Amino acid sequence: MSDEKVKVAIIGFGTVGSGVAKILLDSVDEIYRKTSVRLELAYVVDVDLDSPRPVTLPNGLLHNDLQKVLADKEVSIAVELVGGTGVAADIQKKLLKAGKDVVTANKALLAERGEEIYEVARKQGRCVAFEASCCGGVPVIGAIRTGLVANRISAMYGIVNSTCNYILSEMSGQGKEYSVSLKEAQKAGFAEADPTLDVSGADSAHKLAILAGLAFGGQVQYKDISVEGIDEIQLVDICYGQEMGYAMKLLAIAEQTDKGLSLRVHPSFVNKDELLAQVYGSFTAVSIFGDAVGHTSYYGRGAGMMPTASAVVADIIDVARGNAKRIFEVTPGFGRKALPQQLCPREEMVSRFYLRLSVEDKPGVFFKIAKILGDRKISISACLQHESKSDDCVPVIIMTHKARQGDMNQALKELAQLQVVRDRPVCVHVVSPPKDGLFGDEHE
Amino acid sequence: MSDEKVKVAIIGFGTVGSGVAKILLDSVDEIYRKTSVRLELAYVVDVDLDSPRPVTLPNGLLHNDLQKVLADKEVSIAVELVGGTGVAADIQKKLLKAGKDVVTANKALLAERGEEIYEVARKQGRCVAFEASCCGGVPVIGAIRTGLVANRISAMYGIVNSTCNYILSEMSGQGKEYSVSLKEAQKAGFAEADPTLDVSGADSAHKLAILAGLAFGGQVQYKDISVEGIDEIQLVDICYGQEMGYAMKLLAIAEQTDKGLSLRVHPSFVNKDELLAQVYGSFTAVSIFGDAVGHTSYYGRGAGMMPTASAVVADIIDVARGNAKRIFEVTPGFGRKALPQQLCPREEMVSRFYLRLSVEDKPGVFFKIAKILGDRKISISACLQHESKSDDCVPVIIMTHKARQGDMNQALKELAQLQVVRDRPVCVHVVSPPKDGLFGDEHE
Repeated sequence: MSDEKVKVAIIGFGTVGSGVAKILLDSVDEIYRKTSVRLELAYVVDVDLDSPRPVTLPNGLLHNDLQKVLADKEVSIAVELVGGTGVAADIQKKLLKAGKDVVTANKALLAERGEEIYEVARKQGRCVAFEASCCGGVPVIGAIRTGLVANRISAMYGIVNSTCNYILSEMSGQGKEYSVSLKEAQKAGFAEADPTLDVSGADSAHKLAILAGLAFGGQVQYKDISVEGIDEIQLVDICYGQEMGYAMKLLAIAEQTDKGLSLRVHPSFVNKDELLAQVYGSFTAVSIFGDAVGHTSYYGRGAGMMPTASAVVADIIDVARGNAKRIFEVTPGFGRKALPQQLCPREEMVSRFYLRLSVEDKPGVFFKIAKILGDRKISISACLQHESKSDDCVPVIIMTHKARQGDMNQALKELAQLQVVRDRPVCVHVVSPPKDGLFGDEHE
Repeated sequence: MSDEKVKVAIIGFGTVGSGVAKILLDSVDEIYRKTSVRLELAYVVDVDLDSPRPVTLPNGLLHNDLQKVLADKEVSIAVELVGGTGVAADIQKKLLKAGKDVVTANKALLAERGEEIYEVARKQGRCVAFEASCCGGVPVIGAIRTGLVANRISAMYGIVNSTCNYILSEMSGQGKEYSVSLKEAQKAGFAEADPTLDVSGADSAHKLAILAGLAFGGQVQYKDISVEGIDEIQLVDICYGQEMGYAMKLLAIAEQTDKGLSLRVHPSFVNKDELLAQVYGSFTAVSIFGDAVGHTSYYGRGAGMMPTASAVVADIIDVARGNAKRIFEVTPGFGRKALPQQLCPREEMVSRFYLRLSVEDKPGVFFKIAKILGDRKISISACLQHESKSDDCVPVIIMTHKARQGDMNQALKELAQLQVVRDRPVCVHVVSPPKDGLFGDEHE
């Protein structure tokens, strides 16, 4: 390790870019003391030179011309924080072709067009580092690639989107409707003006594509992930779930089944005693299950200026040390080509389910419902019907044992066609992270 | 990265040694596929050649002569799993002098005699890797040295000893006395026949010395840690704590204060809503607070054959990649000399406290107690006295606001001298992990 300065450029001077600049300006000596890596912020590039930012750059650092960075051979590491899947892709490719290693938090780009980027990196003998792309400052990518590398990973259950977890926490904790909670999240800075990418589950699926690719060692396509967001969640279902001992979380799940790798993002009822049920507000957590290590979990702030900057700067240091490149170039699906994963078809996925049916309050109704479920081999584990004040229509809540998704889809169609069932039946997955089977249960 | 085989020797064929051998024998191809590192188990050395083990070695692998490993130049990595601070030190030094990098789970040796070992490693240009020394398979050392490296760490709160957490969980969950829970832990394989190292808090302090050295970037001496175990904990205090909303955990704490670094291991009441209160049985967890990342936490099985082996093999791979050495050699207090930390004197440490006093049930008693506390500027935050069936002696429970340890020590002496106070007053720390102050509270 030499004492030479490592020159760094930041492309994209938004929230996270400001955080990275702040650490590089404030903590360079501290980082040198701990790592013997001497970083120097050489350029910050953004089309917008004028907007005020939460950090003040020394004169001459801010530019609007990427060409300066590309042409400066002394800049060895460039951070792409522009975001999105369009111009960011061109920027990353240009940087790699100019001989820079790239550090990025851009999960959308890596999930949707990663193969294009990695191809360029491979050809150029450069690396892409992306710890900041998943769960902000929580070093979960490092854990998968280094700490857990001796394991065959069997499953990964994650709360990976801060915005959704904040909204669901507000709904659960304060009894607020979805629309109210979303507005509060926007006001508090936890949701964008257009929250679609987050609340639709797409952002969670982006992160899952990256994490599952790393954990299962094969190419995972974003488009192969089945995605359901939180935008149609109703407060009434959260309340019934709580009454039955469950918390509502948006989970990103990747898990090996005997039918292949199951990849999905959906709202989930999780038993309130599970660790994932204890993750509140804008925090995120990922539980990873390995054959040797059993259940491990990683928790922290999944977004925000400084937490994400923490991961970006960790990656800059890891690239400067040479360690990031050594790992990138041998990682299947990233620095090396990988075969596609065998996937579990959506219909074959097995889960427990929560059903809410609005039914007419008259004899024989429960029999009809139970028959449809029974015919599909869907077994009822619990049910709940409160005495109704209305004599017209009452909600019936049913929790099932494990059932095939395909069977449940069929049952839902038939239930919706029953004359005694009003409105569309509501169906939510009920999820139990696996027992790791090592010794002693964690919930005893 | 070449395709050459990396030859590995295991010294110490006990429980963890068997787990490491199992992974190296079963998962070599899988590891090669993921990492391009081809490992070969070349030797297993133990003085005992005859006892049955949970893994069957190929013929010719088991030896009782370390000399064979030392003399084989092709063995580049040796794993010391003998344990203890005596012969293990000699073995590690011999291995390093013979040009091997050393991987170990031996927290006692590194905490008590690490400087001797690191000195030899530095002279020989070799490295020592020790992810397995703290929290079994949970990659918390990797997190500190890589993922969180851009942060100034302000505090670390950990449940780092599985045995103690198992015993306290049994006491709390099942209402069993300490002696009964200990016996059950021994029967279940979670405690040794002689449990002293665990229940005295020494093992937690060993791990804290290593983790705090890494997190705070200076030399931390085991002997500087104030240590209190769980062996005098009474069930009645756990029950009163639960009644007041607290769970009892053995915490290892390192935290920057304005008086220096405070290092301590002691039983602690933690608010039941805190993440650390949700860690049950033989699981462990470490919460780390950084200035950029805020609160992060790492959870998993803190001991056991396969979880610990998971971390050992991760280290073997990291050493084989060359990454472990690059990090070791720049880490202050390990591969590089470091200045000692400025320490917060024990008396200056500030905490909340739980007190249980057995007092005579007569007028004026509470006044006397309150006066002693008040005189020492110790403020009462809550108290609890149940109506007593005995008319002789009743327990009074007091929770305090934050107070200096020195003031509390003095108050305890004075309380013990009161004629109306029977038995020795019981005092337990009440601990709140810090708020990270970033944005939005995690317990809202």
